[in-house]
Amino acid sequence: MFIARSEYDRGINTFSPEGRLFQVEYSLEAIKLGSTAIGIATSEGVLLGVEKRVTSPLLVSSSIEKIVEIDRHIGCAMSGLQADARSMIEHARVESQNHAFHYNEKLGVESCTQAICDLALRFGEGAQGEESIMSRPFGVALLIAGWDSDDDTAKLYHAEPSGTFYRYDAKAIGSGSEGAQAELVNEYNKSLTLEEAENVVLKTLKQVMEEKLDAKNVQLASVTKEHGFRIYTDTEMTQVVGRLEES
Amino acid sequence: MFIARSEYDRGINTFSPEGRLFQVEYSLEAIKLGSTAIGIATSEGVLLGVEKRVTSPLLVSSSIEKIVEIDRHIGCAMSGLQADARSMIEHARVESQNHAFHYNEKLGVESCTQAICDLALRFGEGAQGEESIMSRPFGVALLIAGWDSDDDTAKLYHAEPSGTFYRYDAKAIGSGSEGAQAELVNEYNKSLTLEEAENVVLKTLKQVMEEKLDAKNVQLASVTKEHGFRIYTDTEMTQVVGRLEES
Amino acid sequence: MFIARSEYDRGINTFSPEGRLFQVEYSLEAIKLGSTAIGIATSEGVLLGVEKRVTSPLLVSSSIEKIVEIDRHIGCAMSGLQADARSMIEHARVESQNHAFHYNEKLGVESCTQAICDLALRFGEGAQGEESIMSRPFGVALLIAGWDSDDDTAKLYHAEPSGTFYRYDAKAIGSGSEGAQAELVNEYNKSLTLEEAENVVLKTLKQVMEEKLDAKNVQLASVTKEHGFRIYTDTEMTQVVGRLEES
Amino acid sequence: MFIARSEYDRGINTFSPEGRLFQVEYSLEAIKLGSTAIGIATSEGVLLGVEKRVTSPLLVSSSIEKIVEIDRHIGCAMSGLQADARSMIEHARVESQNHAFHYNEKLGVESCTQAICDLALRFGEGAQGEESIMSRPFGVALLIAGWDSDDDTAKLYHAEPSGTFYRYDAKAIGSGSEGAQAELVNEYNKSLTLEEAENVVLKTLKQVMEEKLDAKNVQLASVTKEHGFRIYTDTEMTQVVGRLEES
Amino acid sequence: MFIARSEYDRGINTFSPEGRLFQVEYSLEAIKLGSTAIGIATSEGVLLGVEKRVTSPLLVSSSIEKIVEIDRHIGCAMSGLQADARSMIEHARVESQNHAFHYNEKLGVESCTQAICDLALRFGEGAQGEESIMSRPFGVALLIAGWDSDDDTAKLYHAEPSGTFYRYDAKAIGSGSEGAQAELVNEYNKSLTLEEAENVVLKTLKQVMEEKLDAKNVQLASVTKEHGFRIYTDTEMTQVVGRLEES
Amino acid sequence: MFIARSEYDRGINTFSPEGRLFQVEYSLEAIKLGSTAIGIATSEGVLLGVEKRVTSPLLVSSSIEKIVEIDRHIGCAMSGLQADARSMIEHARVESQNHAFHYNEKLGVESCTQAICDLALRFGEGAQGEESIMSRPFGVALLIAGWDSDDDTAKLYHAEPSGTFYRYDAKAIGSGSEGAQAELVNEYNKSLTLEEAENVVLKTLKQVMEEKLDAKNVQLASVTKEHGFRIYTDTEMTQVVGRLEES
Amino acid sequence: MFIARSEYDRGINTFSPEGRLFQVEYSLEAIKLGSTAIGIATSEGVLLGVEKRVTSPLLVSSSIEKIVEIDRHIGCAMSGLQADARSMIEHARVESQNHAFHYNEKLGVESCTQAICDLALRFGEGAQGEESIMSRPFGVALLIAGWDSDDDTAKLYHAEPSGTFYRYDAKAIGSGSEGAQAELVNEYNKSLTLEEAENVVLKTLKQVMEEKLDAKNVQLASVTKEHGFRIYTDTEMTQVVGRLEES
Repeated sequence: MFIARSEYDRGINTFSPEGRLFQVEYSLEAIKLGSTAIGIATSEGVLLGVEKRVTSPLLVSSSIEKIVEIDRHIGCAMSGLQADARSMIEHARVESQNHAFHYNEKLGVESCTQAICDLALRFGEGAQGEESIMSRPFGVALLIAGWDSDDDTAKLYHAEPSGTFYRYDAKAIGSGSEGAQAELVNEYNKSLTLEEAENVVLKTLKQVMEEKLDAKNVQLASVTKEHGFRIYTDTEMTQVVGRLEES
Repeated sequence: MFIARSEYDRGINTFSPEGRLFQVEYSLEAIKLGSTAIGIATSEGVLLGVEKRVTSPLLVSSSIEKIVEIDRHIGCAMSGLQADARSMIEHARVESQNHAFHYNEKLGVESCTQAICDLALRFGEGAQGEESIMSRPFGVALLIAGWDSDDDTAKLYHAEPSGTFYRYDAKAIGSGSEGAQAELVNEYNKSLTLEEAENVVLKTLKQVMEEKLDAKNVQLASVTKEHGFRIYTDTEMTQVVGRLEES
Repeated sequence: MFIARSEYDRGINTFSPEGRLFQVEYSLEAIKLGSTAIGIATSEGVLLGVEKRVTSPLLVSSSIEKIVEIDRHIGCAMSGLQADARSMIEHARVESQNHAFHYNEKLGVESCTQAICDLALRFGEGAQGEESIMSRPFGVALLIAGWDSDDDTAKLYHAEPSGTFYRYDAKAIGSGSEGAQAELVNEYNKSLTLEEAENVVLKTLKQVMEEKLDAKNVQLASVTKEHGFRIYTDTEMTQVVGRLEES
Repeated sequence: MFIARSEYDRGINTFSPEGRLFQVEYSLEAIKLGSTAIGIATSEGVLLGVEKRVTSPLLVSSSIEKIVEIDRHIGCAMSGLQADARSMIEHARVESQNHAFHYNEKLGVESCTQAICDLALRFGEGAQGEESIMSRPFGVALLIAGWDSDDDTAKLYHAEPSGTFYRYDAKAIGSGSEGAQAELVNEYNKSLTLEEAENVVLKTLKQVMEEKLDAKNVQLASVTKEHGFRIYTDTEMTQVVGRLEES
Repeated sequence: MFIARSEYDRGINTFSPEGRLFQVEYSLEAIKLGSTAIGIATSEGVLLGVEKRVTSPLLVSSSIEKIVEIDRHIGCAMSGLQADARSMIEHARVESQNHAFHYNEKLGVESCTQAICDLALRFGEGAQGEESIMSRPFGVALLIAGWDSDDDTAKLYHAEPSGTFYRYDAKAIGSGSEGAQAELVNEYNKSLTLEEAENVVLKTLKQVMEEKLDAKNVQLASVTKEHGFRIYTDTEMTQVVGRLEES
Repeated sequence: MFIARSEYDRGINTFSPEGRLFQVEYSLEAIKLGSTAIGIATSEGVLLGVEKRVTSPLLVSSSIEKIVEIDRHIGCAMSGLQADARSMIEHARVESQNHAFHYNEKLGVESCTQAICDLALRFGEGAQGEESIMSRPFGVALLIAGWDSDDDTAKLYHAEPSGTFYRYDAKAIGSGSEGAQAELVNEYNKSLTLEEAENVVLKTLKQVMEEKLDAKNVQLASVTKEHGFRIYTDTEMTQVVGRLEES
Repeated sequence: MFIARSEYDRGINTFSPEGRLFQVEYSLEAIKLGSTAIGIATSEGVLLGVEKRVTSPLLVSSSIEKIVEIDRHIGCAMSGLQADARSMIEHARVESQNHAFHYNEKLGVESCTQAICDLALRFGEGAQGEESIMSRPFGVALLIAGWDSDDDTAKLYHAEPSGTFYRYDAKAIGSGSEGAQAELVNEYNKSLTLEEAENVVLKTLKQVMEEKLDAKNVQLASVTKEHGFRIYTDTEMTQVVGRLEES
């Protein structure tokens, strides 16, 4: 019954009689309202792709930043409350710089993901020292993509508001994630090249986006051994979108 | 149902079962009660225009400050709770001065906008160090206009209480924003001169204002490479308003 | 509906679904319960006038202080909760002294008003450093009158609990403000002398006061270039009230 | 309606929709439950008189202290919660000593009253530095009586829980204040001697007290230029009460 | 009506519309649940007597400490929550030692009582410095007995949770206080010897106790000039109880 | 009525209209859910005995620690929330060590008990300095047993969540306490030897335990002058349980 | 009745009238939603086994870490909220390192478990010093396995959100714990070899898992004297799962 349940979910950090944390579950709903983001890990590198919702023709689409750099070898795509993501990514950037400074080595992709999730878990604790702590769960999910020098492998992680994270071969988040994930299960295989991954990501986004996909309302980025994290330029976007349309 | 919903929206920083943050959404309503503000980015510079609500003939209209300077190369127009805007703008001014002092270069327009949005996102955290933190979302939207020396480009950003921001070619906020934005989509093109932008802004304000537009109840300002941010003098206002009436 | 609305207005710093801040709006009601105060800016100086409510014949009317000095060149009239006003005025006095000490110049009237409004805006933040912060909005409105040496001009500002302020040529606040403001619109013109302003203020107060106006239940004060802020003596009050009765 | 109103008055520092502060108003009710206290200012000095409620024949009536010294030249009578009064008076004593120490002059009676009212206004702020701050309004009213050396005048002030204060020629507080104040208006005139004031106070107390007035259940004190604040001895009380009965 | 009232009494430090502090009044109920305690001041010294509720035959009755020493010349009897009393008494002991150390004189009995009441008044303030502050009113009443060297007089004070205190010739507190106080009014006279007071106390306790009074379920203590505070030994208790039974 | 009462018991430290502290009373219920524990003071020493609830055959019964050492001469048995007991006992251990270190003497049994009760009383105060303070009453009762060198006597104290404590000759706590205490009243006499006390404790536990008593589901410990606190070994337990079965 | 009960369980640290702590009980429900984990202590070492829920074929199963190392000689398996477990395990790791550093010996398995439980007990206290304290009970149960050098014994402990812990010969936690524990009671005997324990764990998991058990959706780990804590490699998992299928 709705009314009774509401007595538990107001407390930001309270168990319901069934052992559930409603505020964390509700934050997942915020993510389902977000634009779709997709990641695919290949042997050549990880490919990230996002839908951009250009709500007005006067909106400069390049200012919609759904894929951002964390370090030269790690990037991430987001879905949900954009402003929340900024805090998490800023935190990850600092952790990555600190690690490089103290240990003279690149931060591992899993360690980077864990740093983000540790922050996510700490909501409701109040301000502590220098850092701003959210008084509610983060309303954003992240796909963290990076290249680990240790084992020369491209890795893709999915981090949730609850602070849990898993590694995926391919993963979709956001409003179209359900359909997109099913598509990815069909299309993914271990031997995908990065170029093939481009096609899979765009094809999948095309299916779940409400508007017609073009070079302006999607964005791709890759993390490879040679070039680290890089966002596709407008020219590149036009090329890959054009290639998709031809096929 | 109204009563049930209210159980969620009282918590200032709590997700509803649908993943929404009601207090942030309500703050957007505060902005819709505000006077209309418009910004247009041209290749010559950005033009800002606002409606002034002169509620009494004895009110000195120059004391209604809806457009203010942040730094010599950045200014902003506001709509919503005026007192809230002061905190945000004061924060931006300090950030801008600090940046100039530490790095001996002008703060970028996007960085300035992000500094404001970071502050906006932090509501509900309680006082931290020197700075006053709001215990509710800011009830104000800003149009931040500036000239970036890096790429010699005029830029216009729109910042919301939620802490999200986007770059726009032209954007309207406040009570008349819906009609005004539609007008802007019609009138805007990339090759507008600053003078043509003056006409577009005034024409658009004229359509959405309840009172008859005159040189006292609107205000214009521009940010250009040569003169940075400057508010139009009374003489200039009389000129451009006169030109509008002639046309 | 009354009950439902009350669910929002209990939170001192929470938006209602319509984007309103009820506690701030309710504080305006506290002001409407207050005695009427009037200010008129002339080229010779600003005149302030207030109604005194002498509730008992044994009450010493000179102890009702509705007009007070902030600095030698700035004074203010108040309407609403008298004790709240003391905090604001004390704050303004300190700001004014600090400014004079640090910069060796008189604090501008607008800056003084803004200092008061910054304090007003900060309610609900809890104690911060040395200063006492109210846990609710101030229940008082102020008419701040001063003489700026910069432009040799008398200025009158109206500051509200919400932290917004505007400059006025003439302004009435308190229980009789509606009728008084209408009267001021009729009577005010730019060429009023200070003596004519005395008549306008007294005539206006007379119309909105419940008791018969006499030299004991009203108080006048002026801010001029020559004499700064000064409260009219009993003798002067008797003179101007007498002059009003003759006319 | 009772229930609806209660939704506002629980917040200790919240405005009702009518702009009222219920907790402050309720604290006035606590004073109306208190014993009656009266003060009269004469040219010779101020006279304070209080009713003592001797609830048991075994209660030592001299331990009921409703009139206390603040400094050698200032005293006060109280009505309401006795324990609350102690905090206020202790605060006033410290202020008075500090003033004398720093400026080598006696604290003015109005300044003393204002110090008390500033403390009263600060309820709900939480502990600050050394001083204990009440989490609710003080439930006590004070009649502060003193002799100012500056103008060689006896002064009587009335301080309320709201932090407002006024100077009176004669004032009654507590459960019998309504009837007593009416009596004072009748009896008071500017030329009263201190001895005549004794009669007026006792006569007035006699009318509003439930028990028969005698030398044990009333207490007088005076503040004069020569003797400062002094409480009447048992012998003196017997004399003046005897004189009243004769008359 | 019960429900409506409860809306006020939950706030620990909130006035009801009638000006009452419910939590303080409820704490008085906790005292009425406590065992009876009696004090009588005589010219020879003060006598304290308490009922001990020996709830089990295996309970060592000497471990029920309802009368304790504060200093060599001051002791106190308690009724209500025993654990609450410990905090108050510990506070009084420290105050007494501090006074003796700083001023090289014994703390006066009234000053000692006031120190306890000041602590009682401060509930709800939160922790302050070194000392633990209760978050609710103390649920205990104290009879504080002592010998003042200043005026060579035995004194008895009654301190309540509200922080008010009065001096009594004889006073009863706790569950049987009503009946006991009536008895004391009958039996008390100024010329009582300490031995006669023993009889009065025991006789009075006998009347209000549910169990049969014997040397184990009552306890006496005295404060005299010669011996200061001392608790009666088992032998002495047997003597005085025996004497009572004989009479 | 249930609902109405609940309005008081939610506040952890609030009096009900009858002067009761519900949260403290409810904590006593938590103890009644706990396993039974018994203590008997004899002239040879104190004997403690507890029931162990071995809920699974795979549970290692020695890891159920219901009797623990506080110092070499003091031990304690517990009933209720085991984790709560750890905090109290840790506190007592530190107090005992500190006392020995500062004063070079063993902490008295009563002082040790009082230290525990002082901690118990302080719930709801928030963290203070180094120590963790519970935000609710402790849900555990303790039987504190020790040997005082001062008077060469074995002592047994019972400490409750409310912070009250009494000395007992013999005392039972926990789910079977009612029946066990009645049994103890029958069986106890001052001349019991420690060996006889073993029989009384086991016989009493046997009567109130649901499962059949054996050497694994009960535990004994003693505090004597010679050996201080010691827990019975498995061999000893088998002996005394065997002896009980023979008898 | 549901509604009435809910009035108690909202307070995170409040007793119900029956002496229960609902939030702690609800956290146990969170554990019952978790995947099953099993531990068996043998004379050769402890074996831990967990079910992995591979929710998507694209999820990299090795990133599901339900068994982790605490120190070289201690490991643990978890069931419930994975992110909560990280805090507890991080805490245990630090404690273990500190102990080794300060005392130059390995931390005992029980001490390690107690350190975790002390942290668990402290929820609701707010941040303290360096460490993050949860504002609700942890929603995770742990099986802590280790080898104690002191007595050359393998030990298995079960730690709950309430902060209680017991040593077990064999223990199952999580959604299938009820059935699994019954199975363990049947299968366990003191003379089990580690290899036999592998079979018991896998056989038991097989019975309670919804999906068909294979080398990818279960994980084993062991703690032995020779090798300390080690997680089975993929090859080893394939072997033992193969062995199970053959049998």
